[in-house]
This record gives sequence, C-alpha cells and structure tokens, in this order.
Amino acid sequence: MSKKPSLAVVGATGAVGTVMLDILSKRENVYGEIRLIASARSAGKKLTCRVEDLTVVALSPEAFDGIDIAMFDVPDEISKEWAPIAASRGAVVVDNSGAFRMDDQVPLVVPEVNPQEIKNRPKGIISNPNCTTLSMIVAMGALHRHYILKELVVASYQAASGAGQAGIDTLREQIKLVANTNVGDVAGDSRGVIKNLDPFPAPLALNVIPWAGSLKEEGYTSEELKVRNESRKILGIKDLKVSATCVRVPVLTTHSLAVHAIFEKTVSREIAQEVLRNSTGIELVDDPENHKFPTPADVVGTDPTWVGRVRKSLDHPNVLDLFVCGDNLRKGAALNTAQIAELVAAEF
Amino acid sequence: MSKKPSLAVVGATGAVGTVMLDILSKRENVYGEIRLIASARSAGKKLTCRVEDLTVVALSPEAFDGIDIAMFDVPDEISKEWAPIAASRGAVVVDNSGAFRMDDQVPLVVPEVNPQEIKNRPKGIISNPNCTTLSMIVAMGALHRHYILKELVVASYQAASGAGQAGIDTLREQIKLVANTNVGDVAGDSRGVIKNLDPFPAPLALNVIPWAGSLKEEGYTSEELKVRNESRKILGIKDLKVSATCVRVPVLTTHSLAVHAIFEKTVSREIAQEVLRNSTGIELVDDPENHKFPTPADVVGTDPTWVGRVRKSLDHPNVLDLFVCGDNLRKGAALNTAQIAELVAAEF
Repeated sequence: MSKKPSLAVVGATGAVGTVMLDILSKRENVYGEIRLIASARSAGKKLTCRVEDLTVVALSPEAFDGIDIAMFDVPDEISKEWAPIAASRGAVVVDNSGAFRMDDQVPLVVPEVNPQEIKNRPKGIISNPNCTTLSMIVAMGALHRHYILKELVVASYQAASGAGQAGIDTLREQIKLVANTNVGDVAGDSRGVIKNLDPFPAPLALNVIPWAGSLKEEGYTSEELKVRNESRKILGIKDLKVSATCVRVPVLTTHSLAVHAIFEKTVSREIAQEVLRNSTGIELVDDPENHKFPTPADVVGTDPTWVGRVRKSLDHPNVLDLFVCGDNLRKGAALNTAQIAELVAAEF
Repeated sequence: MSKKPSLAVVGATGAVGTVMLDILSKRENVYGEIRLIASARSAGKKLTCRVEDLTVVALSPEAFDGIDIAMFDVPDEISKEWAPIAASRGAVVVDNSGAFRMDDQVPLVVPEVNPQEIKNRPKGIISNPNCTTLSMIVAMGALHRHYILKELVVASYQAASGAGQAGIDTLREQIKLVANTNVGDVAGDSRGVIKNLDPFPAPLALNVIPWAGSLKEEGYTSEELKVRNESRKILGIKDLKVSATCVRVPVLTTHSLAVHAIFEKTVSREIAQEVLRNSTGIELVDDPENHKFPTPADVVGTDPTWVGRVRKSLDHPNVLDLFVCGDNLRKGAALNTAQIAELVAAEF
C-alpha cells in the first residue's frame, strides 16, 4: 500500500451506515479522507467517524470527485442509478444493494470465501451479498471446502433491523405496547393493540412472520431466492440446490438460520466442529451438554459467524444440521462491505 | 352412545389444564361427571368448567373411583406412576406426557390421521403426541395420503407456553424488562437486564434459543427426536427420515414450523393447496400476493392446523416447502387430548 485511498460512505445515516461509521472507527485506519454522503435531506448533518466530526454531503456526481473507493448502502434503485456514476468518476464501488449482485460482470464477494473475485470487476463495481446469505455463508464455505456442498435447506430467524431503521423502531414501539397487555395469550388480540406494522406485513412483537422481501416465482420470496442465487454465485456451485423459508422474528439485530446441509462426502460431527473451529471468521460454540450454543443476544455487536448445534443426520451419512447466527448489520452488511473495501484499499 | 362416561382431568391447574377446561366447556357435552384432579398443593381450589364450579381433588388412587376416562397432563414421571393406577381402576387413560408415547403397547393418536389406533390399547392407555409434532402432523398426514411422505426437514419456532405456565410468566416478565431499555440493539446487554431465565437456558425476550428439551444422541435434543419418532409412529412410516432443529422464539402461544417435505410422488403446488384446503382440521391461508399467510398472532386460540407459504421446490419435483402454525396448548395438547377422549367416549 503506497498511498491511503479516499473513501466515500454513501447512505451514511441509515441503520447499516451507522454501524459502518463505528466499524471504520475501530478497524485499522487504511483510508485517507472519509467522506459521508446521503440524501439531500440529511446533508449538513454532523456525524463522528475516527474521532472526527464529519459533515454529511448530498449525493451528487461531484460528491465522488477525488474518491477512490465508494461504499453504497442505499435502496436498489439509488444504487442502480448512482453506483455507475461513482464508478465512471474513478471510484471502485462496493455496493450493498441487490442491484448488481447477480450481474455477471459484478463479483459477489465474501472475503473469507472468494476474495480472489474482487479482481474481476469490469464495471468497477463489487457487490456485497444479502444479509441472510452473509449470516451463514462463511460457515458454509468452510464446510464446502472440506466436504463439497450439494444442497441446502434453510429456515431463517431474521431480525427486525434487516428491514432497516424503521424495522428497529417499529419492533421497539410494539414491544412497549404489548409489555403491559395480555396480547399473545389466548385472550389477547395483538391487532387490536398494535396499529403500526410498517415495514412488516403483520405484528412482529410476540409473533413471527413467514415473509421477507417481495413475491417471486412459485410463491418464493425475493429474500428466499437471494439465499439460493447468491449462495450459488459466492460458493461457485452453479447447480447448488437450495430451499429457503425466510421468517422474521422479534429480535432487533442478528439473523439466525437453521441449516440442513447435504454434502458429497461422508461427514463427521467432530471433524466438522474442528473445521469450523479452525476457520477464519467463525466462532464455534457447541457444547450442548452445558447449554452452550449461540443466540442473537450473545452475537449482536460481534464480527464472526457463530455456529452451534452441529449434528450429523441420523438418516444420512453426508448431512449436517446446524444453527448459525450472524449480526446482520455487521458481517451481514457493514463489516463485509468494509472487508471488501480493505481488499481494494490494499491495491493502492 | 348409551351412557355419558365420567371424566377426570388430571393436572387441571396447569397451562394445558386451563385450556382443557375451556375446551370442555365449549365442545359437545359428552360427559357425565367431570372431576378435576391435581397435586395435593392445589386440592380444594375451585375452577369453572361447563358453567359449574368444581373443587379440585388431590391425586390418589381413590380419586379415580367411578371414572371412565382420565386425561393426564402432568410431568412424565407423574404419568409413569399414576396412569397405570388409573387404568387398573378401570379408566381409559389419555396421557399427554412423554411417558408412554413410544411404548409399543400404547397407541399414539391424532384423530385426523390415525383414529383407528385407539382400539389397540392393551394397557388401557392412549398417548397424545408432543406439541411440536402435533402442530404439523395433521398437515403432513393429509399430504402423505396424497403423495407418500419419505422425508421431513423441520425447523421450529416454538412458543414459551410449550414450557408450561412458567414459560409464559418468564417471557411476560422479560418483555416488561426490555420494553424500556436498549437491550437487543448493539449497545444492549440483555443478560444485564434479564436475571430470571427459568425455564429457558438463555434470555427469550428479543432473542431466539436453539434448544428445547434435554440432550440426546448425536447432539439432538429430546424435542427434536420426538418430532422424528412420533411422526414415524403416527404416520405409520417406520423408516421416515426426519431432521429437526427446535428453536424457542418469543411468542407466548402457538408453535410454527418451516417444513421441507420430500415425497415419493411428483407434487403440484395447486394440488397440494387443494388437498390441504379440503382436509379436516386444516385451514389453508396461502395468498402471498396479498401477504396472506398464517402467523401465531392469527392462530392463537383457534383449533385448526394453519398452513401457508406452500411452494414446490425449484430443484426437486417431489418436494414441498411450507409454513405451518398450530396453537400448542389447543391442537398441540388439550384439543387433541379432548378429541381422543371423545373417540373413547363414543364407545360408551
């Protein structure tokens, strides 16, 4: 590294952006200037990063002048419009929206799994995976390298913050509303107490909602197909079979997944535990005798992918069941973006 | 039916017992005397059933004198000791504990699936399945009759009341504690705020816990093996392959399950929906375009098994993914027990 590249954080005021500023303040200081960019509505706001007070500037083509690397955490349509503009002005874009993830000319990168892919970026754009895929993919990559993955059956336990700051605010508000009522018991009608559902399609406090994203083919949701398509692209397994059911749960931050993973080779519970224990970015907590396994409450605010409840199927010699947790705002979003950006920064 | 049989409700003061009294008050009145039995600690307590005030009597051999049918909802060890005593005094026992479920001489019955089995009761005992199995098995039975089930991969979203009244009370208490804190966000430490976990191994409010039951072989829990073994016995498929991951969620009542079901025959989404729609005991709510699917908040306090999110696998012609909800205190416990007892009552 001969010079410190300049960095733009686009979407600095959102739920992921807020975590990003914290991450940038705590990781090795590899950047020169850091510029915060957001919508015109947030321009002028002051935020702290690396102990500096920074003033948010409005998104415009000129906002990217002199920027080497631009992280985007904004809605798909904003990325679709603005990532190419940033790239055309010379920035390498690391985009956390869904706009480019399945674009053949845009690599989809998880540094612990396929770091080599960052070089293949003809559009100057690198995509960051969806938070649900990211919450399990480091563990799946480690096991795939050992056993060769053929199929995944996944059920998710997704946190409210996967739907952004509005998701966090709405769950907090609903929890307060139900705390002193009998909602959720047989006599309680949560729809009578909870009026504001937005951004969810049903009450989330004291409930679970089998829905995330929008409706796609055969009744699957966009979120469920992201788990399928993105896992295939990141792991480089074109014909990986994936069935996912995505469910929102009343947790603020940290996605969990129950994973049923089918491999080509015969598995061993002890060797799988060993593989996970020795892999970068993974924390194995698997001592069921002493009730030790990861839960979102233990994982929130941490960097690794946490894995527990590793079991070898009683019916199949080549199948593992496991439970995985990842902070969806950190490894599931901001941290992975920061890791990709650091790989790019190392080129300077 | 020539006479109305007398009924004993053993464990009348527990979470399931309370629901049972409500169910007995609302269903067809097929019983003569109803006698409420509980531990000596609860004896003398007055409870209402069928608009009558009944006084709870202490569990003793004589408490079963003159009783034709005895429903048990008590811990395994109490059932193990007392169900044979009740049977030896002439009562047909319908037991909701785990004590006899896998006993070859005790049928495990779900009236919509295997009602004929109630006749095969050499010990005078009929078992009621575990609540997690029961929350999905009516739907699985209907699809099995049509497509022949070969394998289940299940992830559960289990309510606090599955752990009894203590589970309900603890979750309510924890929800109040976290309602006005920042617990669950990156800065919040729920273990600092929540001191009472009992009966759970971790905080449940704003969390999920991948644990239910006790540790059994290969790292699976007793609850996960119950789903496996009981599904095999109820459906009469000795070699049914089952992988389950059981997870507790901060819902008070109603278990949900994400089910990946592998059949012998090729499936169709529309026909599967039709089969479910036309089956007794099932309510199909599957209109994803309009965000219609079952959630615990909609299901609590109702009798049917609710099914939604029916999808045909994109990778396998013989696989369905679906989401199932059932009130674990009703169909998952008291209602199924009541239904079995009514089948027995029809013999009188």
